[in-house]
Amino acid sequence: MNITFCCADTRPEPWLEGLRAALPGATVSEWQVGAPQADHAVVWSPPQQFLDEQPGLKGLFNIGAGVDALLRLRLPPGVEVVRLDDAGMSVQMAEYVCHAVIRHFREFDGYEADMARGRWSFRKPRMRAEFPVGVMGLGVLGQRVARALRHFEFPVHGWSRTPKAVADVVCHAGAQGLDEFLASCRVLVNLLPLTPDTRDILNRRTLSRLQPGGYVINVARGAHLVDDDLLALLDSGHLAGATLDVFRTEPLPKEHVFWQHPKITLTPHTSARTLREESIAQIAGKIRALERGEPIAGVVDRVRGY
Amino acid sequence: MNITFCCADTRPEPWLEGLRAALPGATVSEWQVGAPQADHAVVWSPPQQFLDEQPGLKGLFNIGAGVDALLRLRLPPGVEVVRLDDAGMSVQMAEYVCHAVIRHFREFDGYEADMARGRWSFRKPRMRAEFPVGVMGLGVLGQRVARALRHFEFPVHGWSRTPKAVADVVCHAGAQGLDEFLASCRVLVNLLPLTPDTRDILNRRTLSRLQPGGYVINVARGAHLVDDDLLALLDSGHLAGATLDVFRTEPLPKEHVFWQHPKITLTPHTSARTLREESIAQIAGKIRALERGEPIAGVVDRVRGY
Repeated sequence: MNITFCCADTRPEPWLEGLRAALPGATVSEWQVGAPQADHAVVWSPPQQFLDEQPGLKGLFNIGAGVDALLRLRLPPGVEVVRLDDAGMSVQMAEYVCHAVIRHFREFDGYEADMARGRWSFRKPRMRAEFPVGVMGLGVLGQRVARALRHFEFPVHGWSRTPKAVADVVCHAGAQGLDEFLASCRVLVNLLPLTPDTRDILNRRTLSRLQPGGYVINVARGAHLVDDDLLALLDSGHLAGATLDVFRTEPLPKEHVFWQHPKITLTPHTSARTLREESIAQIAGKIRALERGEPIAGVVDRVRGY
Repeated sequence: MNITFCCADTRPEPWLEGLRAALPGATVSEWQVGAPQADHAVVWSPPQQFLDEQPGLKGLFNIGAGVDALLRLRLPPGVEVVRLDDAGMSVQMAEYVCHAVIRHFREFDGYEADMARGRWSFRKPRMRAEFPVGVMGLGVLGQRVARALRHFEFPVHGWSRTPKAVADVVCHAGAQGLDEFLASCRVLVNLLPLTPDTRDILNRRTLSRLQPGGYVINVARGAHLVDDDLLALLDSGHLAGATLDVFRTEPLPKEHVFWQHPKITLTPHTSARTLREESIAQIAGKIRALERGEPIAGVVDRVRGY
């Protein structure tokens, strides 16, 4: 069995060694132009040429949760596109989101500014009941984030394309459930997959339906958010702040106004990092299952887009 | 039944109204010099004169979790000193501590500094297994904090005066268990009661036993921590940072070096605030139970000190 590795911005050696150790008997190598046909590929942002030269691939394993960039390429017709399920990412996402929600809820930015000016300040505690959090996207990551928010007793609403049931979460679904969902939330956490239906979904119309003094936390894709609409609602005061980990162009261009906006906290796409050991173990297990003809989790529906 | 209210730094009216509503038939009033004898008192930092004038008190209800300041006063001999149990404080404490631990673990301060300089930075993810967190004090608050840290899959150690068992927490106890506990931790969270045994417990000897690159989170009392010892270990690099919510003198004096230290994050004693409605409901319930001769939770052992 041949496994090829074709990942941008990733040092190949530790992945190759890990995959060889996890799949004894397989030939594992980094892809090069003109390389022999592989059975399975481990990829991140591969070039179109790679896919064109590998028409016989059975499995195409993306080392991240979002496959939007991959699905914009021409893919071999018979290949299974497989996304990473969890693999240590969901707890990181829960950490990142809870950190941001608690920071907003407890006004830690305000205290920090006060303390930096030498002011021992008093702020009236906010009531948890007045801080409902909405999670858009109720897949593996969204459900884990919702569970973490419930751990801290926030009221949690969820929204997904198709109806879902999640314990202790008020679930809304579909285009007809979106406005009610938005009006129920003061904090919006975006964990949607990026598809033609969800591109630009965080815009002036939707974000203005959030409760006054709201917050936006975007940890999915930059193209979900219309940057200028966010800025307008922050500047009008309807939104109180935003925590953004993802951007339309990454790295965020030097001249972008997000860099210096006082109500925006930025991180460099670090909310849930791919953990190599966990990912190798998961991908190797799925390759073995595919080879035995068994079903695997995380196969992408190309029409649906995730 | 007479209830008297004697709380420093607290607006009395909403408490008086709440206690009257919760205890119909009781006479509830703010204490004044020469006031009639009360059966129960709701207090925060009362003057010695108050206690001297109220020898017949049956219950002395502190509107906070820590009773160290109260126990330094001369108390009526027969009174039950009662601390607030939870009453919405433990989830706040879990929030505060998890926010601080995640901030340190995920290096959010470092990312923030990078982004403020316009740098889209890369940092190698830290391994959770290399970030064990130790919780000192395993009462209501300590156990709630430990549970929240376990929710995020951190290895958690606990230390308490007497042996305790907490699910998924490696528990250590007593003076003989302290060094092993400290050596097991990279992050130290202090939730101990302040007693003669625990005063100055966070000092150069104990803090130097933490794993290199360690962090201290103090949410109990300022007098647990020897300020100069913390500063020396931060400056030597053995400790990487500290998050402090409590101080030997509060408000923190203007000239204190903590204000401007780059490795110290300060908040103005806000980690777990007394929530009025929850506290009134709890205290009223305990007063009714004491009047019926029933046992109540939260009675302080004056010899033990908490």
